[in-house]
Amino acid sequence: MSLSRKLLAEFLGTMLLLATVVGSGIMGVALSRGNDGIALLANAGATAGALYVLIVLFGPISGAHFNPAVTLAMRLRGELGNRETVAYIAVQVVAAVAGVLLAHAMFDLPLLQPGTHARTGPSQWLSEAVATFGLLLTILLGARHRPAAIPVLVASYIFAAYWFTASTSFANPAVTIARSLTQTFAGIRPMDVAGFVAAQLLGALVACTVANVLIPTERRAEDVAIEAGRALPK
Amino acid sequence: MSLSRKLLAEFLGTMLLLATVVGSGIMGVALSRGNDGIALLANAGATAGALYVLIVLFGPISGAHFNPAVTLAMRLRGELGNRETVAYIAVQVVAAVAGVLLAHAMFDLPLLQPGTHARTGPSQWLSEAVATFGLLLTILLGARHRPAAIPVLVASYIFAAYWFTASTSFANPAVTIARSLTQTFAGIRPMDVAGFVAAQLLGALVACTVANVLIPTERRAEDVAIEAGRALPK
Amino acid sequence: MSLSRKLLAEFLGTMLLLATVVGSGIMGVALSRGNDGIALLANAGATAGALYVLIVLFGPISGAHFNPAVTLAMRLRGELGNRETVAYIAVQVVAAVAGVLLAHAMFDLPLLQPGTHARTGPSQWLSEAVATFGLLLTILLGARHRPAAIPVLVASYIFAAYWFTASTSFANPAVTIARSLTQTFAGIRPMDVAGFVAAQLLGALVACTVANVLIPTERRAEDVAIEAGRALPK
Amino acid sequence: MSLSRKLLAEFLGTMLLLATVVGSGIMGVALSRGNDGIALLANAGATAGALYVLIVLFGPISGAHFNPAVTLAMRLRGELGNRETVAYIAVQVVAAVAGVLLAHAMFDLPLLQPGTHARTGPSQWLSEAVATFGLLLTILLGARHRPAAIPVLVASYIFAAYWFTASTSFANPAVTIARSLTQTFAGIRPMDVAGFVAAQLLGALVACTVANVLIPTERRAEDVAIEAGRALPK
Repeated sequence: MSLSRKLLAEFLGTMLLLATVVGSGIMGVALSRGNDGIALLANAGATAGALYVLIVLFGPISGAHFNPAVTLAMRLRGELGNRETVAYIAVQVVAAVAGVLLAHAMFDLPLLQPGTHARTGPSQWLSEAVATFGLLLTILLGARHRPAAIPVLVASYIFAAYWFTASTSFANPAVTIARSLTQTFAGIRPMDVAGFVAAQLLGALVACTVANVLIPTERRAEDVAIEAGRALPK
Repeated sequence: MSLSRKLLAEFLGTMLLLATVVGSGIMGVALSRGNDGIALLANAGATAGALYVLIVLFGPISGAHFNPAVTLAMRLRGELGNRETVAYIAVQVVAAVAGVLLAHAMFDLPLLQPGTHARTGPSQWLSEAVATFGLLLTILLGARHRPAAIPVLVASYIFAAYWFTASTSFANPAVTIARSLTQTFAGIRPMDVAGFVAAQLLGALVACTVANVLIPTERRAEDVAIEAGRALPK
Repeated sequence: MSLSRKLLAEFLGTMLLLATVVGSGIMGVALSRGNDGIALLANAGATAGALYVLIVLFGPISGAHFNPAVTLAMRLRGELGNRETVAYIAVQVVAAVAGVLLAHAMFDLPLLQPGTHARTGPSQWLSEAVATFGLLLTILLGARHRPAAIPVLVASYIFAAYWFTASTSFANPAVTIARSLTQTFAGIRPMDVAGFVAAQLLGALVACTVANVLIPTERRAEDVAIEAGRALPK
Repeated sequence: MSLSRKLLAEFLGTMLLLATVVGSGIMGVALSRGNDGIALLANAGATAGALYVLIVLFGPISGAHFNPAVTLAMRLRGELGNRETVAYIAVQVVAAVAGVLLAHAMFDLPLLQPGTHARTGPSQWLSEAVATFGLLLTILLGARHRPAAIPVLVASYIFAAYWFTASTSFANPAVTIARSLTQTFAGIRPMDVAGFVAAQLLGALVACTVANVLIPTERRAEDVAIEAGRALPK
């Protein structure tokens, strides 16, 4: 698989993921007469549906990371080189922004609108660290125990995490940056991005460590070959 | 499989799909006391459930297109002849209309009621183009990477697309025509049909092109044999 | 598998199914502040979850009919003898009533309460005929095309049918009789039972006929051996 | 698999399960403007999603009990020794409490808050006995008939049981103890814990007996080897 095809897959997947996250939030709020519980049900269900589809479609091509925290974890495990890692992350950020703009265009909203939703403080950061810890654990242990189920595992996890964390589980630095460009339901203030990203990377790092402890050492050689993308059926 | 059996499968599947789309919209609005967020949750969940079932049941017989945009894409790929293509599309349109009438009859509403819900303008058209692009990409890449999952992929995608597009994702010319015959939740004005259909066909065409880029050329020979219906386990 | 084990499986499955249908309706109404859309979402989701589980658990033992319309269809196909058919149906009715009483007991309601919810007229009967037609088609074609998926097919179908029919899809004579014994959300007047049951049996008969047309004749010999229960993986 | 790895898996799984149960309840109530139907939909959906993921991730390591009633049932079947049984249960209780504290921390609530939600009386106890009976039957028959589906079976069952029982189906002594430490949506008064736990253990015992009747005796030798954890694909 050539790098350009992988990057196209990361671009399309991340863009459509963000269009779903932001677009379903806008629709949820528009229809729910102020009951944000209904809006978040719609937002979580739509995001889970899209994640399942996008990971099945693009997993065999690029690994379907759509997330710099996942790409960095794979780099830590030796699955990507430095050049590929940088390219993946750059494309994810650009694609996430494109997805937000696409959602704004579909809903006839101003394309450029810096986020105004305050999301900061220790509880929010703890939420993001836990959310990303869980996401990475899902990917790393899922790839070991049931790789073909990775798409439905990630979708199910994110549906739950939207609800059980106080931050609605961004769990993705590219998503966080892009969501700072909308004032709709899914938005975040630009000044709150750095705290979220730091917490996310910390959570991902802890997950990598815990996964190493949980997977028995006699399987380490085989373990090196595991990577979300490669573990998916081709 | 004889053509008449295929057409019966397309008829039953498309009719039941429309009965579900329109019927669940009527029920959703009737029960939700003006909270359209709840109505769309029900509408999207019921549509996804029906799509999953109908594609499993009729996929091995007719390919379970239920959608002229899908049939035309398969024609482009050389999977159907001209005669079969025309027959499929004619049956889909007739069956979609029958499904709307069936829903009206079940809910004791006037059978004939031209749509009054305005759905027009560039944002709506963009929504339909994106919705159909995503649907076709789901079918084309899904058939390549995980054909047995096509029913759940299409169901999951449509659940998400009901929410992330501003048009609630018709993504199907036969469905669009039929929904112009109801004044209920799922309706559309007859005068807005042409814009939707044009956007849908454009989105489908872009998806065919992108799928050709994403699927490596060394697999093209095998690729010709892929078709949603045939790729389903028999 | 002895007949007594099969009947115990039918009893447990049908009882727990009814406890779920009636119990989740009671809970839905109790929590939803008069918004029946939320109650039906809960009712449909809980019923689908229970159906999936109960068909997986009891399918390999009894075929997991839980429904006289299904048992009669299997009798028509020569899968059960007369004695077994009568025993199945008798147990299903008794178990369904037991399930309603169990739900009443769990929610601390009077055990005996004849239904007061009027459900009658041509539109309701058409709804029940369509609902049962769809259920039987799902089982008959599903058993042919993807037997291991029968549990999720039936669950998905019933979720959709709760919403797309005007009667909320009883689609089961034993369920209909039992639901005439509750005044809660899922109830029906005793005097309306006969019309529902007649419509259900008509819908089931049409489904058997259509399934015979859709399944090519060259497969008929093999076809005789198909039965929902036996087709499930043992 | 060493005991310490198994206990780490039980700890992480039970902690994240409780964080989900309690956290999604808090979020549901916060967003739903007093409509507890929406809050329970979110609570049930998030719990089901988390259960599916956690059983897939930790099943191959520890059996993914997360529940003293399950551990005791496995002890009854001779699958664990006394020492392992005691260790599992101790870790489950500690982890469940840790999960409640984690949820409180993520939502910036007082960490220590003894439960105030009254849940007592024969109807509630019957609900818990039925809920736990169904859970154990799901695990015991599911492990026999479709072991790879245990994660989705348990998730689907619990989604339904949240709605069809009057107690919202705790069905787990460790969960019950831990939920006595929160005043939020999922809470229970400390004085009501003993009644719930007694009912849960009774329901589990009945399920073990019924499962023995339903599984034919000629399969008993093989049956001894069945255990939720071992039955999962490694």
